[in-house]
Amino acid sequence: MTVSATLAANEAVAARRAAGQEVLALGFGEAGIPVHPLLRQRLTQAAGQISYGPVAGIDAAREAAAGYWTRRAIPTGAEQVILGPGSKPLLFALLHAAGGDVVLPKPAWVSYAAQAELLGRDPIRVPVPKGEGGVPDAEALDAAVRAARRAGRDPRVVVATLPDNPTGRLASEQSVKALCEAARELDLIIAADEIYRDLVFEPGSFPSPAAWAPERTVTTTSLSKNYALGGWRVGAARFPDSPLGARLRESVRGTASELWSATPMPMQHAAAYAWSDPQELVERVALARRLHGSVAAAVAEVFAAAGAAVPAPQGGFYVWPDFAPLRDSLAAKWGIATGADLAGVLLERFGIVVLPGSAFGDDPEALTLRVAVTGIYGENDSERLAALVSRFPMEMPWIAEALAGLAEKLRALTASE
Amino acid sequence: MTVSATLAANEAVAARRAAGQEVLALGFGEAGIPVHPLLRQRLTQAAGQISYGPVAGIDAAREAAAGYWTRRAIPTGAEQVILGPGSKPLLFALLHAAGGDVVLPKPAWVSYAAQAELLGRDPIRVPVPKGEGGVPDAEALDAAVRAARRAGRDPRVVVATLPDNPTGRLASEQSVKALCEAARELDLIIAADEIYRDLVFEPGSFPSPAAWAPERTVTTTSLSKNYALGGWRVGAARFPDSPLGARLRESVRGTASELWSATPMPMQHAAAYAWSDPQELVERVALARRLHGSVAAAVAEVFAAAGAAVPAPQGGFYVWPDFAPLRDSLAAKWGIATGADLAGVLLERFGIVVLPGSAFGDDPEALTLRVAVTGIYGENDSERLAALVSRFPMEMPWIAEALAGLAEKLRALTASE
Repeated sequence: MTVSATLAANEAVAARRAAGQEVLALGFGEAGIPVHPLLRQRLTQAAGQISYGPVAGIDAAREAAAGYWTRRAIPTGAEQVILGPGSKPLLFALLHAAGGDVVLPKPAWVSYAAQAELLGRDPIRVPVPKGEGGVPDAEALDAAVRAARRAGRDPRVVVATLPDNPTGRLASEQSVKALCEAARELDLIIAADEIYRDLVFEPGSFPSPAAWAPERTVTTTSLSKNYALGGWRVGAARFPDSPLGARLRESVRGTASELWSATPMPMQHAAAYAWSDPQELVERVALARRLHGSVAAAVAEVFAAAGAAVPAPQGGFYVWPDFAPLRDSLAAKWGIATGADLAGVLLERFGIVVLPGSAFGDDPEALTLRVAVTGIYGENDSERLAALVSRFPMEMPWIAEALAGLAEKLRALTASE
Repeated sequence: MTVSATLAANEAVAARRAAGQEVLALGFGEAGIPVHPLLRQRLTQAAGQISYGPVAGIDAAREAAAGYWTRRAIPTGAEQVILGPGSKPLLFALLHAAGGDVVLPKPAWVSYAAQAELLGRDPIRVPVPKGEGGVPDAEALDAAVRAARRAGRDPRVVVATLPDNPTGRLASEQSVKALCEAARELDLIIAADEIYRDLVFEPGSFPSPAAWAPERTVTTTSLSKNYALGGWRVGAARFPDSPLGARLRESVRGTASELWSATPMPMQHAAAYAWSDPQELVERVALARRLHGSVAAAVAEVFAAAGAAVPAPQGGFYVWPDFAPLRDSLAAKWGIATGADLAGVLLERFGIVVLPGSAFGDDPEALTLRVAVTGIYGENDSERLAALVSRFPMEMPWIAEALAGLAEKLRALTASE
């Protein structure tokens, strides 16, 4: 198993900077805002907590997570919740509990496929509805699952990412409903990864699969993105209140006990606070949402101005430009034939770190890129905090400079000779 | 996958206490001493660290771990070290990296077998040398591996636990050397789980497989036992400085990136401090070692007085009584035929929580028990601290009472009618 493309991008940036090279770090999905002082305080207060505690997590954290989901229109009891050291290991344990093959949207976040492979299974990739991201197209899903079953395979779980990484898109209610119907028809578990849920830019109802397929949807969240606490490693999974849900929950709890014992205890106390949605943190998340939305829109505009096709970002902190309209000129000028070629030229010639769509299961020849926008929020916590609270983050000199530099480099990439 | 027997024992105790039932909690391997104030301080100081950081861990922590091993006669460079959220996930990633089948001592800690099963493999269990624990007998290992290969299986890794959980024994230098020679002959990787290494009661040289099979031994450690920080979830693995080591290390780093991203960052800073062996912590570990040694010896004596055969505990905090000498009377009086029966009677009739040897791969009919002694150190941190610093912990009223209660209950268990 090789290192995840996103984390490898993070380490590549660190290595290049250590070597004195200038880089524009748009490769890694770190939220890029400082920790809220009240969260740091909670962690500090719980620093003396050194027991393993229950495998599924302490009651206070499970109850808070249940409240978090209940307030978001998914009624949840604490007994439906299991905590983990990030949502990553929970997703792995869920794929194991589901058994059988895993169906992914195409494109999809890198680790789903890697986790399926750890379990000895090749993922089945199904294209997303045109212009959307994060869910497989329901009709294509139906066809792919039936074909796989005819071929002797055993698909049992389908993944949805809402809003999506890598595309930055939020699947439409219509597509999510269709996914839920197809999953019920095909008897598939739905793994709904809603780690960016609180970072949807436009207000409105959120199309959670748990609303329409409550009996078969497992939903995950984490502090890593909404609260920018990736380094604290705490996530949670919500299991359906159904016989299937109980079975999956017990299996995941068993895997948890053998793979990671429990979730870091001081972080559980911080999570119990965060998931209770205190006003201070609600406001913090609102600021983060505004910052991600503004910068993602600006970055999308820069890529569009360079000639790429760019769907409007709707949530999280990713932009998904497609350089297909420039295929011929990029081929002629740089010999670019694949997304990996494109990302390679951007890195080697321009010091821009992005990931090719193929890292997310897109076709190798697709000229798509996943661009994480948070790398330009600032070099230190002061800059990041200034960007966070600003109504006009694009006026922060370091952000303006990064955007101008990106625009200039993309012009140099795409300019005819 | 069902919940690990040890963690299930921990939760059973909590549930019984919540229901107002009295229990003597001797089931779970928690170190049972309070966090050292300087470690809590380090965690607090690092509470603002929210980056994911490098998959393998921050340089400071990897360098400290390298120093930890180097000072223990296993010269180590920081680049040989990978951190994880506990040593459990590191061991899993190692078993995956090794590929093929897993050979375990019989008995062995519960999670090795469960992890092998997660990877779709039945463990191959090889008895320990008579009177020892933690390593398979080398001759029996040779025979078992050759037989397995003839039968088409593919054993590639053998686990050693030094000192051992569940037996509380430290394998002899002779047995470890023989294991190393056999592993080299058979081309097996050695997974040396040394999580209790600093808790060996008698001073003297430590028989680390890395000393005699440096090219093929991966060693793990953690803060959970030596520093009583199970709830903080931080461990480390040391890979050999060899081509095999480099391959395993890269595989584990890849699995880490897909399964858990990185180790909780504030804990990494605390680990960087702990693994530098500051005098205050060296003294703390010495106190813990003394307490574990005293109480383990006392508990062993209580079981021996009741008629069980009990090997003298040598490290960690476990006692491994064997009620075989009382088989006939236990069968006649209680209908006990298996270790599970015995543990069941102790729980249901006497409120004593222990685990049967069969949970650790011992034969079902073996009347062995794993007894974790730390549950009697105290009900709160004040009591535990008093026990820790006392030269005569057995004079602490709560410990004296627990031992007397245990003795009385065992008398009631074993007394002829």
